[in-house]
Amino acid sequence: MNSTDTTAELLENRKTEASAWFEDLRNQICKAFEDLEDELTGTNADQEPGRFERKTWQRPDQVGETGGGGTMSIMRGRVFEKVGVNISTVHGTFSEQFRKEIPGAEESEGKFWASGLSLVAHMHSPLVPAIHMNTRFIVTSKSWFGGGTDLNPMYEIEAETQEFHDVLKATCDKYDPAYYPKYKEWCDDYFMIKHWNEPRGVGGIFFDYLDSGDWQTDFNFTQDVGRAFLDIYPRLVARHMNENWTEEQREWQLIKRGRYAEFNLVYDRGTRFGLMTGGNPEAVLMSLPPEARWP
Amino acid sequence: MNSTDTTAELLENRKTEASAWFEDLRNQICKAFEDLEDELTGTNADQEPGRFERKTWQRPDQVGETGGGGTMSIMRGRVFEKVGVNISTVHGTFSEQFRKEIPGAEESEGKFWASGLSLVAHMHSPLVPAIHMNTRFIVTSKSWFGGGTDLNPMYEIEAETQEFHDVLKATCDKYDPAYYPKYKEWCDDYFMIKHWNEPRGVGGIFFDYLDSGDWQTDFNFTQDVGRAFLDIYPRLVARHMNENWTEEQREWQLIKRGRYAEFNLVYDRGTRFGLMTGGNPEAVLMSLPPEARWP
Repeated sequence: MNSTDTTAELLENRKTEASAWFEDLRNQICKAFEDLEDELTGTNADQEPGRFERKTWQRPDQVGETGGGGTMSIMRGRVFEKVGVNISTVHGTFSEQFRKEIPGAEESEGKFWASGLSLVAHMHSPLVPAIHMNTRFIVTSKSWFGGGTDLNPMYEIEAETQEFHDVLKATCDKYDPAYYPKYKEWCDDYFMIKHWNEPRGVGGIFFDYLDSGDWQTDFNFTQDVGRAFLDIYPRLVARHMNENWTEEQREWQLIKRGRYAEFNLVYDRGTRFGLMTGGNPEAVLMSLPPEARWP
Repeated sequence: MNSTDTTAELLENRKTEASAWFEDLRNQICKAFEDLEDELTGTNADQEPGRFERKTWQRPDQVGETGGGGTMSIMRGRVFEKVGVNISTVHGTFSEQFRKEIPGAEESEGKFWASGLSLVAHMHSPLVPAIHMNTRFIVTSKSWFGGGTDLNPMYEIEAETQEFHDVLKATCDKYDPAYYPKYKEWCDDYFMIKHWNEPRGVGGIFFDYLDSGDWQTDFNFTQDVGRAFLDIYPRLVARHMNENWTEEQREWQLIKRGRYAEFNLVYDRGTRFGLMTGGNPEAVLMSLPPEARWP
């Protein structure tokens, strides 16, 4: 076996490991969310607890070959009004135009491989924050991790914003004290609804192109971001899901969701990339709220 | 008076005439829609008939000067769930980047003037089509008219699609037999929700850069498009607004509205232009549905 074989084999192992982790994380998240469905005692407790349903899809590559695919897990429950947890592992060739924008894609002649998990939860209760989380591993002639999570309360509780950020900061600080301030700022910049000059939510972290030179450590960090999410979000849901809410609070939630939809459709890179490159629109648009208002 | 003065004066007169027409058309449309509110006998007839409310806004120019402004007329009625009729007359300077995309804007050093009317109506009844209409007059170093209208039924009635198109065709044919086929196709191409490979509605006409060399005739045509709208749309509303609808039909309407919001936020040139160039987001996004679902 020569060194090229070894390098290629190493990369294949990394792809397999990363994909396996995204599936594992998906399973842990779905279990945690179904447990919350079981534990509800407040509004909607007369309904059956929700359960995830899975739907797989295949991605036609741009040259007509099958380019991998994914599995959408979606639950329409009694706590979670609509939550999608998508995993996908796809490969293919970027257009001449698009490859200029992606690190290492000109050198790979546009060839790419990508695997990731993407999650958006819209809750029945306006007192429970909505959330987004995703992590991914991308390979062109380079390879890197990216991802993040941001919290979207309808009514901010400052101590909880702090609690959410503290968990993310602790995760980041295990790896590099520079990560949290950098990734927090990136998140704040990214999730700005520019036309309203208004943030989408109360932030979190956002990172991309993470390749420190130590793959295992970067992978550990990416896994820990997933674990941090699993630690903090179900706790916030459990804390508020049994509280009663008013019609006025629900109305405000629907208006905030309209703004959330504006952000995703006008600015979100993943959404626009997915729609413009022939991604599965059902999976790409799973982030959109079940109900929204622009009164 | 030399010929430059005469040309400048002629252009100013045209601007004044065009703006005055858009205001006149706005008044006629608002009157027709309020009359429909008065005439309702079906669902919601126990509520007060809706009336338009007006709100004016000023546009800061990109160099800080005031660059004109507009008036939003909005009605949340018992037939019209939400209808916005915006008129605006603005001027300013396009960015170096943007002027490359606009005819005559490099020659005008980016200077532009624009006046127009833009209307979107979302109806309570899923049996009454939603509609969009706009017409505008733009001046750079060139000048032209643009606009159009497209019908968005939740349940298409083919004879009514035909009726709508017949009125538009008759209007077009008064001017040029080539207009209708060309503008119908432009509309079909434009109002395609590409990621679903699905048209937004049942079409209509869409025209832009109309400068035949005979300004008065082009202006007459633009006015007649407004009059055609005033002829056909209130007739369609009156025909269906007193019919009863079901919860299932309402649910389908909310889903179709979600797709409508996707089109406007992802593809619509006017919406994206308005948001990206610091337009008044309240006026730009008046087209968004009062309520929508992505279940």
